[in-house]
Amino acid sequence: QIDSARLWGAIHETAKFGATPKGGVRRLTLGPEDRQVRDWFRNACEAAGLDVHVDALGSMFGVRKGRDMSKAPIGLGSHLDTQPTGGKYDGVLGTLAALEVVRTLNDAGIETETPICICNWTNEEGSRFAPAMMASAAYVGDFTTDDILSRKDAEGVTVAQALDSIGYRGDRPVGTQKFSGFVELHIEQGPILEAENKTIGVVDSGQGVLWYDGKITGFESHAGSTPMPLRRDALATLSEIVLAMEAIAKKHGPKAVGTIGEAVIANPSRNVIPGEIAFTVDCRSADAAIMDALDRDLRAAIAEIAARRKVEVQFDLIWRKPPTHFDPKLVDAVESAAKMLGYSHRRITSGAGHDACNLNTVMPTAMVFVPCKDGISHNELEDATQADCAAGANVLMHTVLALAGV
Amino acid sequence: QIDSARLWGAIHETAKFGATPKGGVRRLTLGPEDRQVRDWFRNACEAAGLDVHVDALGSMFGVRKGRDMSKAPIGLGSHLDTQPTGGKYDGVLGTLAALEVVRTLNDAGIETETPICICNWTNEEGSRFAPAMMASAAYVGDFTTDDILSRKDAEGVTVAQALDSIGYRGDRPVGTQKFSGFVELHIEQGPILEAENKTIGVVDSGQGVLWYDGKITGFESHAGSTPMPLRRDALATLSEIVLAMEAIAKKHGPKAVGTIGEAVIANPSRNVIPGEIAFTVDCRSADAAIMDALDRDLRAAIAEIAARRKVEVQFDLIWRKPPTHFDPKLVDAVESAAKMLGYSHRRITSGAGHDACNLNTVMPTAMVFVPCKDGISHNELEDATQADCAAGANVLMHTVLALAGV
Ligand SMILES: NC(=O)NCCC(=O)O
Ligand SMILES: NC(=O)NCCC(=O)O
Repeated sequence: QIDSARLWGAIHETAKFGATPKGGVRRLTLGPEDRQVRDWFRNACEAAGLDVHVDALGSMFGVRKGRDMSKAPIGLGSHLDTQPTGGKYDGVLGTLAALEVVRTLNDAGIETETPICICNWTNEEGSRFAPAMMASAAYVGDFTTDDILSRKDAEGVTVAQALDSIGYRGDRPVGTQKFSGFVELHIEQGPILEAENKTIGVVDSGQGVLWYDGKITGFESHAGSTPMPLRRDALATLSEIVLAMEAIAKKHGPKAVGTIGEAVIANPSRNVIPGEIAFTVDCRSADAAIMDALDRDLRAAIAEIAARRKVEVQFDLIWRKPPTHFDPKLVDAVESAAKMLGYSHRRITSGAGHDACNLNTVMPTAMVFVPCKDGISHNELEDATQADCAAGANVLMHTVLALAGV
Repeated sequence: QIDSARLWGAIHETAKFGATPKGGVRRLTLGPEDRQVRDWFRNACEAAGLDVHVDALGSMFGVRKGRDMSKAPIGLGSHLDTQPTGGKYDGVLGTLAALEVVRTLNDAGIETETPICICNWTNEEGSRFAPAMMASAAYVGDFTTDDILSRKDAEGVTVAQALDSIGYRGDRPVGTQKFSGFVELHIEQGPILEAENKTIGVVDSGQGVLWYDGKITGFESHAGSTPMPLRRDALATLSEIVLAMEAIAKKHGPKAVGTIGEAVIANPSRNVIPGEIAFTVDCRSADAAIMDALDRDLRAAIAEIAARRKVEVQFDLIWRKPPTHFDPKLVDAVESAAKMLGYSHRRITSGAGHDACNLNTVMPTAMVFVPCKDGISHNELEDATQADCAAGANVLMHTVLALAGV
């Protein structure tokens, strides 16, 4: 059993890096608060006797020796960056639980056959730089390192500049830290476990993701003197797109979601009809055929709206992450650990994307979920209990021990 | 007849203060470019022999003596501030045509019985500080000077600070420059004169204006893991409000318009359901009963949308300007001048608000419109012909001469 109080203490100690007045965390990837938590994590890894190295995209790896150093380690961990108004658990739990597993093994003097490696992946959230799970995507070869290094945030700062500014552009080429398998613990970020009173989610699959960049070009004109029928209003156009996207997602019942999270009017003024709006779209489903339907229906709806309103809409798919099906053997290992430890559990699909979803494309991977209050995440009110966090860390530890061998 | 080339030259010379790459002007009220154009205008007034003074809200007055100095002058003029992406004519034409009238009278050695006073009113546009036509509203007593001085722009800068920073907080208490009447020349900013091939609009009325500040509070949550039915999406809520407002305005045919010009998502992120949005609404009609209906229908629609979507919507009326009915005698004077000069003309209602609409509540007031290309205004592509501008200035001059007496 891991040390529940020590894990809880670590979560709350690091929550001060970027703490918000409402009890959440604002720790955008590669910003000053991210450097603080990274420094804390590096020190903790070194204090636990791990061999720490950093790759060219800033992902951090702490290796604990095993008896057979010819074997690639079993990886475990998550991320330490947060949303602009994020919570204390999203990502943090998985990373600090990995540290807690190492501390527990150290205290108990347990050696594993296969080495283990705890990880903090750069920019999982995708708020400052797109796409989400950026570094693990580069790790599996979905993007080149150079491509990712050149991505810009809203202020025009590149990933390369941001890495340099916090001193976390590492010397290891991306992808060179090999793994035999990977396990990620995370809060569910949805309402299912809590509703069904289950402690552990055995994650067997994950939704695919479509991210789009959109731009509407209508025509700026006077709010008072431009008759309604002559308007080419970019905001009214966006409004129709938002509601069309909502209806398209709802058509698939619980099997799809769609969100417009960003929308910025260019040169806004109270008495000017908006002429230009940039926006982003996030659509998801665990079913690839539904993802295709979402894409098709959304494009058709936008084309109809644009033609009718005589505006131009640019709509570009910038990221497509197919649905994830985790490795059946590792999923079984997670389930066995939960059973062995006597926790209530169920199989579950992840609504969110995770670094594990990327890693699964090149190695056996699985995930462990624990409940979060009211299913709330990407919100400063995100909450989870100490007991559930500890239960998740225990399942993580016993899964890793089963994979690494004692 | 005024000097068409000189007027045209003045318009294009001042358009360099805040010129944009697309041929428009960005000269926000009380900003550095506004100071430049004000300095230019003051020098031009002094060179034309006018007595220039500035009031406590920065409005500029240049008085030309008349034979009977016991009479309050006839006022003429408009404003020199622009929208963020504004044009070269909105306001500028009326102010520089007033200067051109003085220059023409000087050249011809014409003395008037009543003095005349040319004006540049502060913050007509209302983009940086609300409401629009701010200084003329204070002039007629709709707001106190102190209230207006404390209004803030989006960066928190007050009108008082902005006035001081460009050195245009004058020593004359607001309202102390009296007038016997006021005439304002302006581009139409709408499509009617051009469509009917008329040179002069004899403005007999103006739409009333309702301005609102709105704030939607939904709930931020994860774009991937929050099921559609559990969402409290602030942007989907706004989208319904935008389309409801559009439908409500359209219900009244050409007799009403409604616009949402500003909408800002708090802490936006691609994968976060928007939890909070601030927005503004601008609704207008020339019919007070329709204005009341717009207000009532909009509030009802918002209440229904908010309840159904389980979000909070704060919706505050921050400005109500009733419809304007200009002084019948002055309107007749404008019409007589247009007739006398042989210009085609028609009576027209102003879709936009103007300082003249405020002034009309305390003195006999009228307006002269000239066509603008495709009815486009509040846009960098705003355009008007030299001949139409000159025609408007001639009607302005002869109206003023008729009122002031030669
Ligand atoms: N787990 C999580 O919140 N990841 C962020 C990327 C996503 O939007 O799914
Ligand atoms: N004339 C003009 O554009 N005024 C700005 C205030 C308004 O929105 O009507």
